[in-house]
Amino acid sequence: MLRNDQLAEWDRETFFHPSTHLAQFARGELPDRIVKTGDGVYITDREGNRLLDAFAGLYCVNVGYGRSEIADAIAKQARELAYYHAYVGHGTEASITLAKMVVDRAPVGMSKVYFGLSGSDANETNVKLVWYYNNVLGRPEKKKIISRWRGYHGSGLMTGSLTGLELFHNQFDLPLSQVIHTDAPYYFHRNVRSQSEADFVAQCAASLEELIEKEGADTIAAFFGEPVLGTGGIVPPPEGYWDAIQTVLRKHDILLIADEVVTGFGRLGCMFGSDHYGIRPDIITIAKGLTSAYAPLSGSIVSEKVWKVLEDGTDKLGPIGHGWTYSAHPIGAAAGVANLKLIDDLDLVTNARETGAYFKQALKDALDDIEIVGDIRGEGLMAAVEFVQDRETGARFEASRKVGPAIATALLDRSKVIGRAMPQGDILGFAPPLCLTTEEADTIVEATRDAVKTVAAGL
Amino acid sequence: MLRNDQLAEWDRETFFHPSTHLAQFARGELPDRIVKTGDGVYITDREGNRLLDAFAGLYCVNVGYGRSEIADAIAKQARELAYYHAYVGHGTEASITLAKMVVDRAPVGMSKVYFGLSGSDANETNVKLVWYYNNVLGRPEKKKIISRWRGYHGSGLMTGSLTGLELFHNQFDLPLSQVIHTDAPYYFHRNVRSQSEADFVAQCAASLEELIEKEGADTIAAFFGEPVLGTGGIVPPPEGYWDAIQTVLRKHDILLIADEVVTGFGRLGCMFGSDHYGIRPDIITIAKGLTSAYAPLSGSIVSEKVWKVLEDGTDKLGPIGHGWTYSAHPIGAAAGVANLKLIDDLDLVTNARETGAYFKQALKDALDDIEIVGDIRGEGLMAAVEFVQDRETGARFEASRKVGPAIATALLDRSKVIGRAMPQGDILGFAPPLCLTTEEADTIVEATRDAVKTVAAGL
Ligand SMILES: Cc1ncc(COP(=O)(O)O)c(C=O)c1O
Ligand SMILES: Cc1ncc(COP(=O)(O)O)c(C=O)c1O
Repeated sequence: MLRNDQLAEWDRETFFHPSTHLAQFARGELPDRIVKTGDGVYITDREGNRLLDAFAGLYCVNVGYGRSEIADAIAKQARELAYYHAYVGHGTEASITLAKMVVDRAPVGMSKVYFGLSGSDANETNVKLVWYYNNVLGRPEKKKIISRWRGYHGSGLMTGSLTGLELFHNQFDLPLSQVIHTDAPYYFHRNVRSQSEADFVAQCAASLEELIEKEGADTIAAFFGEPVLGTGGIVPPPEGYWDAIQTVLRKHDILLIADEVVTGFGRLGCMFGSDHYGIRPDIITIAKGLTSAYAPLSGSIVSEKVWKVLEDGTDKLGPIGHGWTYSAHPIGAAAGVANLKLIDDLDLVTNARETGAYFKQALKDALDDIEIVGDIRGEGLMAAVEFVQDRETGARFEASRKVGPAIATALLDRSKVIGRAMPQGDILGFAPPLCLTTEEADTIVEATRDAVKTVAAGL
Repeated sequence: MLRNDQLAEWDRETFFHPSTHLAQFARGELPDRIVKTGDGVYITDREGNRLLDAFAGLYCVNVGYGRSEIADAIAKQARELAYYHAYVGHGTEASITLAKMVVDRAPVGMSKVYFGLSGSDANETNVKLVWYYNNVLGRPEKKKIISRWRGYHGSGLMTGSLTGLELFHNQFDLPLSQVIHTDAPYYFHRNVRSQSEADFVAQCAASLEELIEKEGADTIAAFFGEPVLGTGGIVPPPEGYWDAIQTVLRKHDILLIADEVVTGFGRLGCMFGSDHYGIRPDIITIAKGLTSAYAPLSGSIVSEKVWKVLEDGTDKLGPIGHGWTYSAHPIGAAAGVANLKLIDDLDLVTNARETGAYFKQALKDALDDIEIVGDIRGEGLMAAVEFVQDRETGARFEASRKVGPAIATALLDRSKVIGRAMPQGDILGFAPPLCLTTEEADTIVEATRDAVKTVAAGL
């Protein structure tokens, strides 16, 4: 696999890639891919391969690749002022404008934006704010955090604890003791096949309430959840789930943090997933779609209810001891402003809704007759196909057979289409740029049918 | 303080500034400052004020403001490919080239670079790697982390725990239980004035060893330290400190993480602080100077010794469960490549050494006769002036008198020079861009004399 190329050599010798089999990569047993450029839904690598990226990077390039409007905004900001910090009331035109644009687009009741760099650090900020909030309110015991199995909230020590996936816990001594997990709203994985969706939802809510009562509501500060489970399998919640969960949380005075890192800024065919599902969060986590990944930027949108307590806190205690050097970085802020404008100008939220519906239906039409296809699901431009050994019972394949990864590889190798084998289960995920056309959707669907049939034939 | 300006209004209404008194800012009692552009060591705000930034942002704009070489590199990368992820062996020319450039510049024994966004997330990565390392080696109990009082390692939950400053612990329930603190190598704050530097160093080493023995060496994984204490007061260590500490750590098989977020890439007049002090770290944390803050990028430079264990780990366990969406972001990488080249081309490391020495001497010459000046210290282009109530005894002012902050304010208001009142103590810190000239150094020194004398006269 090694090529006679200095760059490839440097790559093996000096670059520690995230989420990679380090030994295989260093030995040259894993392919490298050096990406050169991109346009629309396509990326092109250094060898000239043009690939249809049906996962938008890591579901983050919402507006698509190669948007000169954003590149120009970045270039202009880099020339004018690449950096100044935002501590102690400092700002730039870009960062202030972006804060205003985000709050204008956010669900009702949202007040202020704290800007970070990654989805992980934004969730870290959220945990700090929640703890501070309960200290200011004189409830020092109300600190535990509930998140869900199969949730994804980041890869740090606290945020990897919030994440409910084995890959991020094993060998890292996670989860930390402050985090406890409740059921994933994964109706397709219900234990009793005959259970109705409504009964499954009631069970999720009851199981959450049981956990809260077992721990004591006065020890639980907050609940973190993605409107649609993302990395855990791209699983839209069953009907009525969010209403049922919110009823429990309100009853026990537990804050709700909606992690909209993936769903924020159009992915579900709504500006926010919270609007789509009637979620009334206390804090919203944003990243990815905020800049379409053109520059690193994340945020915590804080509701007026939480903000008022934070203000009180600083009146009692002085300046808040929280900041990243690159909070509200001007380059990220400039990218964000241009990006949100582009999402509006191109009406990408509508396209996500309409082309998303078209795409899901086309996947169903094309794959429904294939025996190993157990579930086809999605919302807006997030979709997944889940593979099973037995359609009747829903029995899954042994993980060691790696059916999901094999299908993603076949998709790439045979059709130059990038889908993502989700990390836990045999699930092929799609989250293309929101500018996807119906023709491009058709291309992905045909390629998927071909890949699934090819792998299924060899099982 | 409020002005009739929409931007200022949006700022108060929607922007959650880091490390700020939130209530005072929202009420308009704290000044805002909207920064517009910068050149060399100067920034200019929207009202046309031109300020000499003697703290280089947050000691991060190493090459100075307005460098078109870096802005051009960012613009080019934004047009070619603003983003693709680095997971599972993916890369870009910029990220691979930068990994190589970093390893080439790093102290001997360093092998690979993991790229993150902030100094905080890099230290978070380091803790994860250290825990994973000891799990792979079959030492699951060896997990506690030692850092120092007055160390600064970030503002997250774990990294804020590593940080040894009250402002970052209070009301956030930190430090987490996995972190324990040892003495700061702060000779000026020694308890016994007559103690020699050598005795003080021996005491630091003995106190560390006592802590290790109390906890049990087989429970301690790593020691985090900045070559020169930064946010804790800009305190170069006493002669022989790092040798003494490393002897203790080696004896107990404890990894050493050198946090070079501030000292990396020239600040001390050496490419790395580790080279300057003969530190042989197992992991080095970098950020700030890596890109001179032109775009967010941080890194963990992993030694060959640690890397080999990580490789073994993935052979046993599969891909490593660690990654940020924006790890090795192309815009940050492109900025890094251009920045490191510029540091070489302008020979800024030499300038930091030479102009740093000039600056420190000039501060001494100008301030030594002022009664409240207790200590003038520095290394390369980091320097601090510490104020005391009594020179003989070293007795400090009451914190509530805010002498340090008053002097920083006088410096800004009277001379348009930005220094930083360090958060714990009456300490005025300087860390200007590494391109500082002797004339600019003189300007800072004169302005400082004026500010100190003005405040001293009013005490
Ligand atoms: C829902 C959600 N939250 C948080 C994160 C973490 O974001 P980052 O990788 O930028 O730290 C992700 C990343 O995929 C995510 O999907
Ligand atoms: C030594 C050191 N480490 C880590 C950090 C944290 O870096 P960041 O603010 O980018 O998270 C800082 C920031 O000042 C620092 O000085």
